[in-house]
Amino acid sequence: MIYFDNSSTTLIKPLRVGQAVKDAIHSFGNAARGLHVFSHKASLAIDEARNNVSKLINLKNPLNVAFCSSGTESLNLVIGGLIANCDSVITTHLEHNSILRPLYLTGAELLFLDCDEKGSVIVSSFDRIIKENTRFLVCTHGSNVTGNVVDIKALYSKCKERNITLILDICQTFGSIPVDLDMADIFCFTGHKALFGPQGVGGIITKTNHNFKIIKTGGAGYSSFEKLHSNKMPDVFEVGTLNTHSIAGLNEGLKFIFEMGLDNIIKKENLLLKTFYGEIQNLNRIKIYGNFEKNKPRLPIVTLNIDGLTATELALKLANKYNIATRASTHCAPLMHKFFGTTNQDFQGAVRFSFSYFNTIDEIETAVNALKEIIKNAH
Amino acid sequence: MIYFDNSSTTLIKPLRVGQAVKDAIHSFGNAARGLHVFSHKASLAIDEARNNVSKLINLKNPLNVAFCSSGTESLNLVIGGLIANCDSVITTHLEHNSILRPLYLTGAELLFLDCDEKGSVIVSSFDRIIKENTRFLVCTHGSNVTGNVVDIKALYSKCKERNITLILDICQTFGSIPVDLDMADIFCFTGHKALFGPQGVGGIITKTNHNFKIIKTGGAGYSSFEKLHSNKMPDVFEVGTLNTHSIAGLNEGLKFIFEMGLDNIIKKENLLLKTFYGEIQNLNRIKIYGNFEKNKPRLPIVTLNIDGLTATELALKLANKYNIATRASTHCAPLMHKFFGTTNQDFQGAVRFSFSYFNTIDEIETAVNALKEIIKNAH
Repeated sequence: MIYFDNSSTTLIKPLRVGQAVKDAIHSFGNAARGLHVFSHKASLAIDEARNNVSKLINLKNPLNVAFCSSGTESLNLVIGGLIANCDSVITTHLEHNSILRPLYLTGAELLFLDCDEKGSVIVSSFDRIIKENTRFLVCTHGSNVTGNVVDIKALYSKCKERNITLILDICQTFGSIPVDLDMADIFCFTGHKALFGPQGVGGIITKTNHNFKIIKTGGAGYSSFEKLHSNKMPDVFEVGTLNTHSIAGLNEGLKFIFEMGLDNIIKKENLLLKTFYGEIQNLNRIKIYGNFEKNKPRLPIVTLNIDGLTATELALKLANKYNIATRASTHCAPLMHKFFGTTNQDFQGAVRFSFSYFNTIDEIETAVNALKEIIKNAH
Repeated sequence: MIYFDNSSTTLIKPLRVGQAVKDAIHSFGNAARGLHVFSHKASLAIDEARNNVSKLINLKNPLNVAFCSSGTESLNLVIGGLIANCDSVITTHLEHNSILRPLYLTGAELLFLDCDEKGSVIVSSFDRIIKENTRFLVCTHGSNVTGNVVDIKALYSKCKERNITLILDICQTFGSIPVDLDMADIFCFTGHKALFGPQGVGGIITKTNHNFKIIKTGGAGYSSFEKLHSNKMPDVFEVGTLNTHSIAGLNEGLKFIFEMGLDNIIKKENLLLKTFYGEIQNLNRIKIYGNFEKNKPRLPIVTLNIDGLTATELALKLANKYNIATRASTHCAPLMHKFFGTTNQDFQGAVRFSFSYFNTIDEIETAVNALKEIIKNAH
């Protein structure tokens, strides 16, 4: 089966990822919990992964990388740890529920940046919507629906002028396009998507100290007589037994990216994306969402609907008749789908094709032909 | 090296555990996130693990088992989800920081059950300390320091009389001694200890509905237009991408327990425990903590100090000279160590030997001889 659901989770991962996790399961003790080699091995795996995460984002101090259990958890810990109900927060219609729902939970006032008709954030709307008491901007680096990438450097520059903390969700972009420290104050990432890691590991990257309110606490293996664990990085987010097994796998995913070269990964993904988009963009009865202008960075995602079919019907046809796995739904991004009007009975969301380095041009051609045939036979 | 740090994490796991995780990493999509076979495979793995967790605790409805990322997270979600700062909560001196710190964070009033001189909870003190407004009892099923098991059925019977909700930490006991529904209202467990699973998975088991306050939220793959995800089991605790890779490994650990038979596992662990304790209990200059009365259920743990050595010195000798991995510290259980007076400069905690099904009598003999030699040579 052809797998085009890489924005959900990458299925084809370097084989060394699974092997490293298997080896870790059968050779690691509990990190920072013992004076023996098994515990040390687990601690070293964390150190190595911290170093490699830092390397990918050009961070000097690896202790500004904290691991947690998922991208969703990282966003909950940062949003809940910094934002209170008296706050005013800027965000966008592109957001995933892993940002929207933690924001709703804070009770803070939310201000939304405008989108253009392709679903791209209009940076200049920042000046219009900002309020006197706005202290945070929380947004994704790239939409998991359209693949549009936010002009985050322009937004961050506005944030710095106003002393606003920018919290950036890089779950879709980290490992897929360049991410650097000049984009935000705090970065939340996941391991199991473009970093090729296993599920069960995500993390938080900071550049300076923040006074995070502790919302998840527990044992840390040290300072056990303190009433709460440390609120310094990385300890503030690392409580309980760290999932060093998955962290060891993530480390192999990162090493794979360095060995291939991020540039080469981007080149390959762009080739897949452009071939697919180029061959389907002018088909009849197809509606593609997102901005595909040349020379704009974007994620390797094409989300579409075909007139006369619901998204579910199209995805089922692709899966059952053509052996192509896509993702039909509203992609946990309700505001983006409201924006495109893809919440009604006619469409019920949209069908997302998301590519990875391990996909091939042959697979793209198969999908193009499948879409052509489906369109021909619809109605 | 001989591994006696199984209460931290079991190192020797059935080989199928690592293999299942490796296979999952290279064949699972994102559970409940697609209409294709890779997503279905991940969903099925969750279902199977839910069934097997239910089986081990004699629960009828597997949907009363929710998976999360660790025992610590399960305790944070339940304690933070039910207990407020106006509450009065009964707990014990046996608790790990994964219970104590989330309790401190709630701001609730804490009432402590008494301990006898061996560190066992005195059930009858419940009646003396309870207050009019006490609504919760939160405690461990078994101490990770002494291995003492709490007479939880007696406590639960008192709770039921007073309409008090009992939240039980079974991180140390689940998979090691029988745990059944007649012990508590809510159970919090971890996968990587006696269940032989990988790190990165824990869970929550309930028997009826509870009105959990949502403290971690995000995408769930359905009902994306709701402002928060469902507060029903198991959805209330399962947000973001579930770590189906680790869940697949946990499932193999559970199947191993069923195949061996929990009775046989207990028999083996008790043999190791009794042999070790029997041979060292009367040594000079040794101080052993906990209750070792016959016919009392206990965990396969022996925690001790040797007069003239700090716990750290002893553990380092065991590791470096005798190749024996133990755990020297205060085991994230500050009140238990305060109780025993093992927080001062003389001891700096204690050294814990914790056994598992995969340890052998030969390993026990090696450790006994090492202790004898160390005692002979001390001073």
